[in-house]
Amino acid sequence: MINKRGTSPDKIDQLEPKKRQGLIVVITGNGKGKTTSALGMALRACGHGMKVCIIQFMKGDIYAGEWDGVKQMNCDIELVATGKGFCGIQGNPYPWTEHRANAQDAIDLAREKITTRSCDLLILDEINNALKLKLVDLEQLLGLLQNKPPMLHLILTGRDAHPQVVELADTVSEVHEIKHAYRQEIDPQPGIDY
Amino acid sequence: MINKRGTSPDKIDQLEPKKRQGLIVVITGNGKGKTTSALGMALRACGHGMKVCIIQFMKGDIYAGEWDGVKQMNCDIELVATGKGFCGIQGNPYPWTEHRANAQDAIDLAREKITTRSCDLLILDEINNALKLKLVDLEQLLGLLQNKPPMLHLILTGRDAHPQVVELADTVSEVHEIKHAYRQEIDPQPGIDY
Repeated sequence: MINKRGTSPDKIDQLEPKKRQGLIVVITGNGKGKTTSALGMALRACGHGMKVCIIQFMKGDIYAGEWDGVKQMNCDIELVATGKGFCGIQGNPYPWTEHRANAQDAIDLAREKITTRSCDLLILDEINNALKLKLVDLEQLLGLLQNKPPMLHLILTGRDAHPQVVELADTVSEVHEIKHAYRQEIDPQPGIDY
Repeated sequence: MINKRGTSPDKIDQLEPKKRQGLIVVITGNGKGKTTSALGMALRACGHGMKVCIIQFMKGDIYAGEWDGVKQMNCDIELVATGKGFCGIQGNPYPWTEHRANAQDAIDLAREKITTRSCDLLILDEINNALKLKLVDLEQLLGLLQNKPPMLHLILTGRDAHPQVVELADTVSEVHEIKHAYRQEIDPQPGIDY
């Protein structure tokens, strides 16, 4: 932390909530910035010495920078990409049943992380999409939310968050696309889009 | 990367854009997930071996987890918190002139990072707010955007992005608050909110 003219504040406050509690945070919508927001919370949590686990649904077929990004972090962070890409989109060769099997593995893993209380922050990346595509069942996701240990933070990302999930969440953001580079035929760029 | 039943995809594709180019990305709106999205892109870019610089406007008076988070990353990443907190909000003791002086330092630093081409991804966190509060001038920010080297990715966060900034950007997301924990009188929680 530097400040060029030595005009730093007189003191740096350390916030401490009156009550610490684990939150359910949902980041949904059609714009860019859902997975990246979850990854940013992971980085922030690492700074606080928290244990982080990221489970990516439907991702695993296309390399993403965060896979190596988390390896470069000297903190207790784990990322598991469990999927075979976005089910049903053009070019994805896997049948729904295979996507479903992978997503069911991911749900099992999430349940295990929750019941063993093995992390402070658990990110279920793209789970909203996985639910929409019936790769996981609403009852499965609601079961995870209802059994969340009080101190665990749970972050759910992906488009089309289910209303009952929104209802149970503490903080919900909807990311709207105002513009996206791909509409100007700019290819996905490393570091930004993947 | 693990996959419990060995149902990994047959192969992992490595995307490579037909043309690599630096993007201007704006993350604005009133919801949670703007700074964290920028931090997530930083983590992602680190995974790609890119050099990252984060300049935080108006932040520096309250400890944030990302300050230590970036220190734990084994990559070329720098974070500079240049401010004295949110200008004008209740409890902030510093006059506008001091906030302005700090933001002007931050703009000088951003200009230096851009002209010396010393990073691949430059995040100007809360600069939209700083502009709205006249801590920086529109001409200053437009000058940075217009002089951006073609390969540099520039990420601008904060509420109330200026229309001329949106116009120049490639990708713009607006994060809407659907719910926020603080409205239920839940204090900001470490790892999530700071």
